[in-house]
Amino acid sequence: MRRSNLALVLRRLGSHGARSRAGIAADTGLNKATVSSLVAELVERGLVREGELDRAGSVGRPGKSVELDGRCVGGIGVEINVDYLTALVLDLTNTVLFEQRVALDVQALPPEDVLDAVAELTSRAVRECRRRDVLPVGVTVAIPALVDVESGVVAFAPNLHWRDVPVVRGMADRLTGLLAEQPMPIRVANDANLAALGEFAMGSVAGTTDLVYLTGEIGVGGGVIVGGRLLGGAEGFSGEIGHIQLDPRGHECGCGRRGCWETLVGLAGMLRLAADADDPVSDPSLDLDQRLDMIGRRAETGDRRTLDALEEVGAGLGVGASILINVFNPRVVVLGGYFASLGPYLLGPMMAELRSRVVAPDIGGCRVELSTLGFAAASRGGANVALEAVFDDPALVPVRTSVRSSG
Amino acid sequence: MRRSNLALVLRRLGSHGARSRAGIAADTGLNKATVSSLVAELVERGLVREGELDRAGSVGRPGKSVELDGRCVGGIGVEINVDYLTALVLDLTNTVLFEQRVALDVQALPPEDVLDAVAELTSRAVRECRRRDVLPVGVTVAIPALVDVESGVVAFAPNLHWRDVPVVRGMADRLTGLLAEQPMPIRVANDANLAALGEFAMGSVAGTTDLVYLTGEIGVGGGVIVGGRLLGGAEGFSGEIGHIQLDPRGHECGCGRRGCWETLVGLAGMLRLAADADDPVSDPSLDLDQRLDMIGRRAETGDRRTLDALEEVGAGLGVGASILINVFNPRVVVLGGYFASLGPYLLGPMMAELRSRVVAPDIGGCRVELSTLGFAAASRGGANVALEAVFDDPALVPVRTSVRSSG
Repeated sequence: MRRSNLALVLRRLGSHGARSRAGIAADTGLNKATVSSLVAELVERGLVREGELDRAGSVGRPGKSVELDGRCVGGIGVEINVDYLTALVLDLTNTVLFEQRVALDVQALPPEDVLDAVAELTSRAVRECRRRDVLPVGVTVAIPALVDVESGVVAFAPNLHWRDVPVVRGMADRLTGLLAEQPMPIRVANDANLAALGEFAMGSVAGTTDLVYLTGEIGVGGGVIVGGRLLGGAEGFSGEIGHIQLDPRGHECGCGRRGCWETLVGLAGMLRLAADADDPVSDPSLDLDQRLDMIGRRAETGDRRTLDALEEVGAGLGVGASILINVFNPRVVVLGGYFASLGPYLLGPMMAELRSRVVAPDIGGCRVELSTLGFAAASRGGANVALEAVFDDPALVPVRTSVRSSG
Repeated sequence: MRRSNLALVLRRLGSHGARSRAGIAADTGLNKATVSSLVAELVERGLVREGELDRAGSVGRPGKSVELDGRCVGGIGVEINVDYLTALVLDLTNTVLFEQRVALDVQALPPEDVLDAVAELTSRAVRECRRRDVLPVGVTVAIPALVDVESGVVAFAPNLHWRDVPVVRGMADRLTGLLAEQPMPIRVANDANLAALGEFAMGSVAGTTDLVYLTGEIGVGGGVIVGGRLLGGAEGFSGEIGHIQLDPRGHECGCGRRGCWETLVGLAGMLRLAADADDPVSDPSLDLDQRLDMIGRRAETGDRRTLDALEEVGAGLGVGASILINVFNPRVVVLGGYFASLGPYLLGPMMAELRSRVVAPDIGGCRVELSTLGFAAASRGGANVALEAVFDDPALVPVRTSVRSSG
């Protein structure tokens, strides 16, 4: 009971900002003495601190407000993608404490070597937490794959050529020493699902309870928020949208079929249209952001081939997205990954297809927005999942040995 | 507080069957005196009755059990389809009290005339309730359409050629006298969504929290249960799956596009493959069940054209369903409408497509099942929605003027 009340108070401060104890009591229905005791415990655990005087709406003596103290705990999100790894640490107020990207040709390496690099990057994030006196509360690994979330196993990652890789166990084995000093849960989940959670938690469309997130990378991934909750599916395998077959006579796909959506709008499909194989924008050893900048500059200067390619990709985005809009009737479709970088050239033709293909009037009231989190959405979502565990049970965070009395 | 406790007790009896007062107290955490008082009120409202002695697991004096008294309230579900109307009354235990189907060429009539017929059929259902001393607690109209559930307006029904028809207001206008005597809410919703709720509440897959329901009629409709709740979408327009484009070079669709899923597997598409236009199975003036029986008999006797047609439709079902399984990862896909009637011939080719197209191993643990509710699923779901309101707030049902003391 006390644990769930601690959670209630912490979540309230997280979602609504600073508040006096009396205000919290009024908001939650708990009595003032209980709130004071809960707040004291949250302060001891380093999750809450005394804030400014709260005069809003009060008639009597203004109470001192308390607020989330973001600085003491960190959630770690790590992303494995086709040609890079990312690690990111968020504090409880979603401030980025650490972010690092490492180029890595994941497709060319055995999973064991990739996990070595992921573990090394994770250690760096944990060391950075310690340097700042921040308690790391969990690591979530995002990966473009079908993931059995319960067992922590990647069942199948077509673009990485992984099958049945026990990622959580592999990470735990590599981080034994670190986890002995600093026990924390390790999770693994589909990257687009985590990115959807990231957008829902802190993107420009944060709080939109019905949203479809699409990410354009080598593959095309999807994550869906339905009624404020991530669509997981019966076994966690939902959101596999890249292999929707749009044309039975289309290009051959890595999956062995033809005309999958990602052959049309995935990074490789776009590059095939936009440039020759020996063009630097097609060179996977160069940084992706640089290559996308080059394409953007060509489009800006009116290069015909580039503009035609983006027109075709935008239309293809609309064809596939119309299916998802007909199925889900979301409030927003968020375009992530490279779709966000080149969005201004994709949106026009995409919207034209949506208007002609979505059955509901006015495309069911759906907007299309470009992700402001970009390629960082998945690692942010992963860090967020780690932090959510603290909001669910603040007692996971131990009482700090030295708490300075403040105020 | 008392209202929500009344609901708690009623729902417990609804989902778990007969129980002693002491057992209910143990199940719900309410104290025994409160439970006795709540049960007494539910008995007065005619929703609960005294039952058998409950000896299960008791060590002391066996308590008398109480159970749901289904007989006193009725939920009414009415379905408008392309060539028929159905009305159905369910009591609180989901027993069918009344069911009637009326052939009507809905496409050929103006909406006003159709609503006249729907109102007349509804009145008949209400009269039947009264004859049995059953209180009608609500009417839900199911319709193959995009429905604005909040305002009770059918925005667009492609196969009925309806646009912006205010169904709830139209019904209320026609039933003024009846509603004056017997006020009750009228609702309208998409037929496949209601059918999915019907399957979830009382079909062979009842209680499966992640399911996709597909109905094959003139159109192809879908309803999806995600985590135990109906997928509604931001504006109630979800589940529009019939117009997923499977082949840009396919048959022309009523919607103006080409190769929509329903051109391949809708009733008209199946009939085009299975029979000539002058074949009695293609005659819309004959009863649909009879026509489907004829097709089933031809398949049974090995008629080549029929078998080839069903093979092709089954494969088409698999192609489209693979998209939904990749997106939702449901536990079960339920085939309703004519898909259920001819299911034994469709399942083989459908499963073959699913196995080759679903990305998750073992098609994500998904089963395909034939609806046992068949064409009645939507009206059952509609009746169920009306009854849910009673489970949510039993005080909607007035205290009966004459309650016989029982037991």
